[in-house]
Amino acid sequence: MQVNIPLKQVVDNSYDITIDTLPKLSYDTKVAIVTNPKVSGLHLGYLLSKISAKELYIITVPDGEAYKNQASIDLILESLFNHRFNRKSLLIAFGGGVIGDMTGYASSIYQRGIDFVQIPTTLLSQVDASVGGKTGINNSYGKNLIGAFHQPRTVYIDPHFLTTLPSREFGAGVAEVVKMAVTFNADFFNYLESADLNDKKSLQEAIKQAVQTKAGVVAKDEKEHGLRAALNYGHTFGHVIENETGYKKYLHGEAVAIGMVMANALAVKLGLMKENEADRVKDLLKKYDLPTSYTIENVESFYDAFFLDKKSSDATITFILPVGIGDVKITDSVAKETVISVLEGFSR
Amino acid sequence: MQVNIPLKQVVDNSYDITIDTLPKLSYDTKVAIVTNPKVSGLHLGYLLSKISAKELYIITVPDGEAYKNQASIDLILESLFNHRFNRKSLLIAFGGGVIGDMTGYASSIYQRGIDFVQIPTTLLSQVDASVGGKTGINNSYGKNLIGAFHQPRTVYIDPHFLTTLPSREFGAGVAEVVKMAVTFNADFFNYLESADLNDKKSLQEAIKQAVQTKAGVVAKDEKEHGLRAALNYGHTFGHVIENETGYKKYLHGEAVAIGMVMANALAVKLGLMKENEADRVKDLLKKYDLPTSYTIENVESFYDAFFLDKKSSDATITFILPVGIGDVKITDSVAKETVISVLEGFSR
Repeated sequence: MQVNIPLKQVVDNSYDITIDTLPKLSYDTKVAIVTNPKVSGLHLGYLLSKISAKELYIITVPDGEAYKNQASIDLILESLFNHRFNRKSLLIAFGGGVIGDMTGYASSIYQRGIDFVQIPTTLLSQVDASVGGKTGINNSYGKNLIGAFHQPRTVYIDPHFLTTLPSREFGAGVAEVVKMAVTFNADFFNYLESADLNDKKSLQEAIKQAVQTKAGVVAKDEKEHGLRAALNYGHTFGHVIENETGYKKYLHGEAVAIGMVMANALAVKLGLMKENEADRVKDLLKKYDLPTSYTIENVESFYDAFFLDKKSSDATITFILPVGIGDVKITDSVAKETVISVLEGFSR
Repeated sequence: MQVNIPLKQVVDNSYDITIDTLPKLSYDTKVAIVTNPKVSGLHLGYLLSKISAKELYIITVPDGEAYKNQASIDLILESLFNHRFNRKSLLIAFGGGVIGDMTGYASSIYQRGIDFVQIPTTLLSQVDASVGGKTGINNSYGKNLIGAFHQPRTVYIDPHFLTTLPSREFGAGVAEVVKMAVTFNADFFNYLESADLNDKKSLQEAIKQAVQTKAGVVAKDEKEHGLRAALNYGHTFGHVIENETGYKKYLHGEAVAIGMVMANALAVKLGLMKENEADRVKDLLKKYDLPTSYTIENVESFYDAFFLDKKSSDATITFILPVGIGDVKITDSVAKETVISVLEGFSR
């Protein structure tokens, strides 16, 4: 005999992103701000002047991608249990992408899921990590290999925080902005070529366009069954670069910048992109001092490392390749020798 | 300025439960059977005679509630990474509730979620854990405090496995069957009073009715915002008992049996249930040799332990109290002194 468990439901995970000076926030529940020592030193006073809660806690985890791991999650969860957070309690992610991903993941598994709010403080996390609900941690096998899809309740993007952002981190954010333009929006790319993002007004406009572009993609494909994979443009190569360099040499956005250059080289090789289009992307990245070259020590092991990437299936690698500027192709049928020959262009 | 991220979607997590001899199963992906040494010793040969996959792996974790922890999850995930499982790979939970909860949780966080199939081998997991998608692990603060909602792709309930079930474990399963009847289905309760579940045909009928009852509840409230909480009847007390006894003295269903007796005592005290109805429940539990008494050493600390239970809110405890037999009331407004006086009935 058979019993059907009917679980077809309308689920509304919609939320708003406010791009503006942070408003006054007031919560009648327990709230924990999850942040790191650096961000809290720079900006916690500002946040605390804006926020009130029934009970407020601050949890700091070590700063940097190297600490985006289970130990940091344990540290966050331990504090929540210790202070008896319940299902109505709230976490606030206050920091860059690492803080956002970890806070989101912790909130997704604490008592099978509680709400969290994002207040991203870097350009990268404002334009990228704030949209889409991907949360997770790294382990010895690679990046984001453990995690969940868990949407924030809301996101506040306050340009104020960018005033203290080191220029390398600013550039890393620009890389994700460029990514969104190359894959989905030619007009936006043209705008970026003409604008100077060091100008505050231009920057806010660029953040808005980047967020809107990503939102459009995520709305069509929340759990990355198809189109959303296109946002991994530059990431297939970038993840291997980050892994090879122990997540220490490059910021995530910097690795993605190099990854986009590599993906473009493969796209040119396959006739999807013109040389001069690839050059325009490279020039735009250079304008913000992003790295565009990388020396692959061992082409075969670089290739092999693709296969652990979670976007890969059994015996294939999924590449996200630009089609000119403003369009994208997702393909898992690129011959190994074609990839190898492109990788060899980056070896000694 | 504000950008809305529209994520309103129809999500279909429906699945079928087959109550019958296990059919032949064939998968064209990587499959890992997650089980424990005892179940695999008894039944893995039977399962392997029915199953084929592109690549098949067996992962055993230590047996018992005491090992339903992060270390076991790490052990499972490590194996999946080691064998390069991808998003299309599948886990099969082959064992009791502990195996089901852990396999479900591991599959919910591996690469942000992969599919899993349940083949429950105990009566408890067949009637309870197989329906609802609750997954998770315990920690030093209590039971199931870390986890996710993650529905299985399908469930196979094969009565064959129950032939080797120790009588204590059989009774623990009956406790959950009784729970479903008391809270939602008076006819089903009457049936249970007259039937002998040691008879195979009566047992299959009871499994079907229990599963259908729970399915009806879960379909209305997948993520436990309201009605579904009623399935925690007996659990508010039971969790504290399990915690106090280190998850070792009682099987989960046994602790729930005692918990139901305690909840009934509170319901009688509040005039929701008659003495003789409480007695009928107790008699039914005794018929299957379930424990119905427990000595509380310290009433205050027992009461205090309620507050860490995840179903509790800030300063209140949610009690699930039967209204007669076949109906239930969820309330968080029972005065502390009323609860204490009931708990004192269970102290020395």
